[in-house]
Amino acid sequence: MRGVLDLPPSLEPLGLSIAESLNHVSRRFDDQLNSPHAPVQALVAHVERYRGKMLRPTLVLLSGLATRSELTADHITAAAVCEMVHMATLVHDDVLDEADVRRRGATINNLHGNEPAVILGDYLFSAAFHLCSQIEHADAARHASAYVGSASMAMCAGELLQLHNRKNLALTHDQYFQIVSGKTGELIAVSCFLGAMLSGGDQSTCTTLRRFGMNVGIAFQIQDDLLDLLGSQDTVGKSVHKDLETGKLTLPVIHHLESANPAQRAASLELLRAAAEGRASDTSSAALAKALTDTNSINYASARAALLVKDAITDLHSMPDTPARQMLTVMANAVIDRSF
Amino acid sequence: MRGVLDLPPSLEPLGLSIAESLNHVSRRFDDQLNSPHAPVQALVAHVERYRGKMLRPTLVLLSGLATRSELTADHITAAAVCEMVHMATLVHDDVLDEADVRRRGATINNLHGNEPAVILGDYLFSAAFHLCSQIEHADAARHASAYVGSASMAMCAGELLQLHNRKNLALTHDQYFQIVSGKTGELIAVSCFLGAMLSGGDQSTCTTLRRFGMNVGIAFQIQDDLLDLLGSQDTVGKSVHKDLETGKLTLPVIHHLESANPAQRAASLELLRAAAEGRASDTSSAALAKALTDTNSINYASARAALLVKDAITDLHSMPDTPARQMLTVMANAVIDRSF
Repeated sequence: MRGVLDLPPSLEPLGLSIAESLNHVSRRFDDQLNSPHAPVQALVAHVERYRGKMLRPTLVLLSGLATRSELTADHITAAAVCEMVHMATLVHDDVLDEADVRRRGATINNLHGNEPAVILGDYLFSAAFHLCSQIEHADAARHASAYVGSASMAMCAGELLQLHNRKNLALTHDQYFQIVSGKTGELIAVSCFLGAMLSGGDQSTCTTLRRFGMNVGIAFQIQDDLLDLLGSQDTVGKSVHKDLETGKLTLPVIHHLESANPAQRAASLELLRAAAEGRASDTSSAALAKALTDTNSINYASARAALLVKDAITDLHSMPDTPARQMLTVMANAVIDRSF
Repeated sequence: MRGVLDLPPSLEPLGLSIAESLNHVSRRFDDQLNSPHAPVQALVAHVERYRGKMLRPTLVLLSGLATRSELTADHITAAAVCEMVHMATLVHDDVLDEADVRRRGATINNLHGNEPAVILGDYLFSAAFHLCSQIEHADAARHASAYVGSASMAMCAGELLQLHNRKNLALTHDQYFQIVSGKTGELIAVSCFLGAMLSGGDQSTCTTLRRFGMNVGIAFQIQDDLLDLLGSQDTVGKSVHKDLETGKLTLPVIHHLESANPAQRAASLELLRAAAEGRASDTSSAALAKALTDTNSINYASARAALLVKDAITDLHSMPDTPARQMLTVMANAVIDRSF
């Protein structure tokens, strides 16, 4: 969230210190990916260019600082690992979504085709796990590898569930939350967990920060889904309306289908089928937007995300009131208060 | 190579013991991938069905036994890790190659589309790295993760170089060996290395077995390329002629283009272009086969593979003459003496 957070003056010194640590994370990230082979390096350099908000690294660092007042080199390593796993999934997501634009740049698959995009993602996964083994203390390295491995498996399971449910217009709330807690929640949760663990946090602290990350992660995904539904490519910086086109039901749509009257529901199902079959027009998109507003479904989804953020922030009250904890609160709020 | 090796009677007891250990590896493999989510489990079960020769696990076990006379639970874990990384690459390779058949079964991408195949490969990578962190001694777990991570990065770099050089009809010997040592050699080398390391082998032993694996791995790939060029789907058990169709130059073709006279060379380049553009016919395939025979290029590639195997076997002479060392020799020979 570098450059995104509107920090109160009392948190500015911490903000500067985090920005400096994030520079270290970026260098660790780049160093780990460097390749002597020119064609590999060219692809890696492209990925490095589309690095974005650095949400996960920031959470590793802040969770570490909320647990103990100093960071170690291992926090920098773990932060780079979490960002690298995230990048690997972005590169593969763009293949799945057939997306052309990511963070205002062309995607790897758009520039070079799907094949290098698939292998580049594998390279990023491998590099992330290799980097994780470089955490200094052997026990911590082993635990971090186990947690990142589990989170990554859960993330893939979430993605597979989502793929399995494409064009399933009967997707339930529970299924939606199972999918998003896997595909987005787990890695954000493990980012917070690792920060605490590497600061020597006790079990209760690690669990609290893990839960904070999970709640923030799910809220983040709900907001992402809302932006895909409502945003424009210019504002969001990546292709939009992909969920409707690929038949992915998200929270506002699920709420709408559950709360609409039978006639409304039938009409909306037809609009959703049209979108998933590439038959959407400006008129049908406007009709769907109106239908979602009629059942208050956009507000419902926003409120769910806000509630998750509130829970996340309340959870932190069991920890000492430090600038790091305050900045975690600012970040949690920023996750839902964004248009990109 | 289970069921493939023709073992002399003196090695039969070891063969049985390895077969039993491989059953443990299979169980460790399956247990690690199990998912409570039915759609994930269905995909995983399909991958488990197309498990094949178990070359890498066998090499972990035999390298362990060639170093010290007993195996530990960690050898079983490491063997499952190496097979899982291999499976991940197979699933992704099938996406890249648009292959329909693998080990006589339909590929994941053929059955379910490219998208779940990409994510399933990621799930396998993540599961492999998670499993690696489960090696009992923390130091060994960390080292194993580092080596598997590096090997996996090198493997991806090899694949990316290969993709970059598709339809490069000027590919050199050096480039070919750089590609295959990455994409195939590194993981087989690290399998042998891990077996030795987990048996407490000294640096010289670990290095010897690593080099053995690299030589055997490159020979394996040359043989694989020969089978793709000369075999039939019925015998090989997977789609063939993919290299020509995708514009991948392999050793016999490189040798041919370097040693043919200018007229022969021009004619063969035209045949290669036709194959890569989907214009190959039975006549053009026969003409290319004859051209490769005329310059003795098939024999050349076979001889290169045989030489690598000979070097690999000679290297082992620095180790005690145990049944495990003898069986590694049998395996090295089997790698090039196979039609599938």
